Amino acid sequence: MITSPANGKVKYVRELILKSRARKKEGCFAAEGIKMFLEAPREDICDVFIREKLDEKLRHEDNLPKNYAACRAKLYGLHYEVVADDVFEKMTDTVTPQGIVTLVRKPRYSLEEVLDVESLRREMGIERSKEPLYMLLENLQDPGNLGTILRTAEAAGVDAIILGENCVDMYNAKVIRSTMGAIYRVPFVYVESLRAAMDEMKEAGIILYAATLSRTAKEYDFYDYRKPTAFVIGNEGNGLMEDTVAKASADIFIPMEGHGESLNASMAAGILMYEAARQRKK
Amino acid sequence: MITSPANGKVKYVRELILKSRARKKEGCFAAEGIKMFLEAPREDICDVFIREKLDEKLRHEDNLPKNYAACRAKLYGLHYEVVADDVFEKMTDTVTPQGIVTLVRKPRYSLEEVLDVESLRREMGIERSKEPLYMLLENLQDPGNLGTILRTAEAAGVDAIILGENCVDMYNAKVIRSTMGAIYRVPFVYVESLRAAMDEMKEAGIILYAATLSRTAKEYDFYDYRKPTAFVIGNEGNGLMEDTVAKASADIFIPMEGHGESLNASMAAGILMYEAARQRKK
Repeated sequence: MITSPANGKVKYVRELILKSRARKKEGCFAAEGIKMFLEAPREDICDVFIREKLDEKLRHEDNLPKNYAACRAKLYGLHYEVVADDVFEKMTDTVTPQGIVTLVRKPRYSLEEVLDVESLRREMGIERSKEPLYMLLENLQDPGNLGTILRTAEAAGVDAIILGENCVDMYNAKVIRSTMGAIYRVPFVYVESLRAAMDEMKEAGIILYAATLSRTAKEYDFYDYRKPTAFVIGNEGNGLMEDTVAKASADIFIPMEGHGESLNASMAAGILMYEAARQRKK
Repeated sequence: MITSPANGKVKYVRELILKSRARKKEGCFAAEGIKMFLEAPREDICDVFIREKLDEKLRHEDNLPKNYAACRAKLYGLHYEVVADDVFEKMTDTVTPQGIVTLVRKPRYSLEEVLDVESLRREMGIERSKEPLYMLLENLQDPGNLGTILRTAEAAGVDAIILGENCVDMYNAKVIRSTMGAIYRVPFVYVESLRAAMDEMKEAGIILYAATLSRTAKEYDFYDYRKPTAFVIGNEGNGLMEDTVAKASADIFIPMEGHGESLNASMAAGILMYEAARQRKK
């Protein structure tokens, strides 16, 4: 059992959770909680840390709640370390009431890989015959929004997320939590230049729709999204940059009644993704 | 200027912000930040508290950012109090970087009032000839979800929100913030029994759709929501209670690809509201 906060692994996990620079550098990320452990692909798990209290709970044979029993079953044959309660709390900054942190290998995709949609789906084990569907994000700042977009993207049948300049870090603890496991299942790639990526995508025959607040744009349900489609979503406060909108194949808007300025960014993204999913059912 | 944290008004505002019991008892609520001040209906403003630093900023005639200038213009003729910086921070628990708290009269609607949709729209100054559209919420717990539902509801043309047992308090600071002003413009009512309200609504000819995860239900875009419509949304983790689903006119589900368990509750609500809005454009 790890009993010292000075232990190298404790420091390592703490840095992964709290410091974005460490998160960028390392090849794995820290996923907190039982759900994130249970959903992690077994072959991508590098290490598991369990707090003393949880370890004791798992030693009770009988009457474990279902998710704890599943947790114990999955731990069998995996390498894991038990961490003293007080050290565990320091390690995770106490945002992990359930007492388990999983280190998971980061997925690494290039833009080319996610654009080769047949290989991508095969690799992800996804059977889908529809045309490709992508989400492009520019300067998205709020961790909860990014997580919710990923979670909704999986459900709506999005093939991959492409993140441009200044987007929040996918491995931020709050993003990971709010994906509810979708982080393991939706491919994503950070690109250096979103506009360069847009050029490549257009060349690959993908139609790019910029989500704007401009009421001179077409309403979001005007176009046929059964074709190869990508939606481009901008920053929470300022929307997309003008040059990015100009780069898109078309701009669209979601009509709004009342006096609100805009929809929440993840809500707007979700409405667009589900409009595509709705059309693609036919 | 208020310089003592023992000042009665300081204590009063602090209680309104931090204590749900005080929020329930009082006839007004505390809305934090410049945006919430600017959007508050003038006739409903009971009092305004401004921190010293903001007061000083507003005294500079020239080059005020647009929202500060609008703030100063709106304050003209209103009663407001300047609060010393340190006292202001204690009063608001430092979640108000912009330094303004507005006390706003609570709207009070009964179920009967929100069901009388013509009078309601007239009172709210809303011109809308469509059939009524309502959202019913059961045991919704997350403040951000409730705020986002309200914000989206305004944009989608929802007439009112009806909140059942155990829903989070609408006057929770996080709910207020995440409505982005919609709290002033979307009528809502807490009812003692959601199921009793459902009975009343059915008698009034409103068709109630329970959002479920059951794949034996009809897909969400199957029904005609141009008729008088209400969607019923349940708790984030557990969905709707069985008896509530049984009370609805029909149950629906939003199809999901992949392995996620569910959509985020506010996302599901938003997709339903915008499906109704989309149909109602025609």
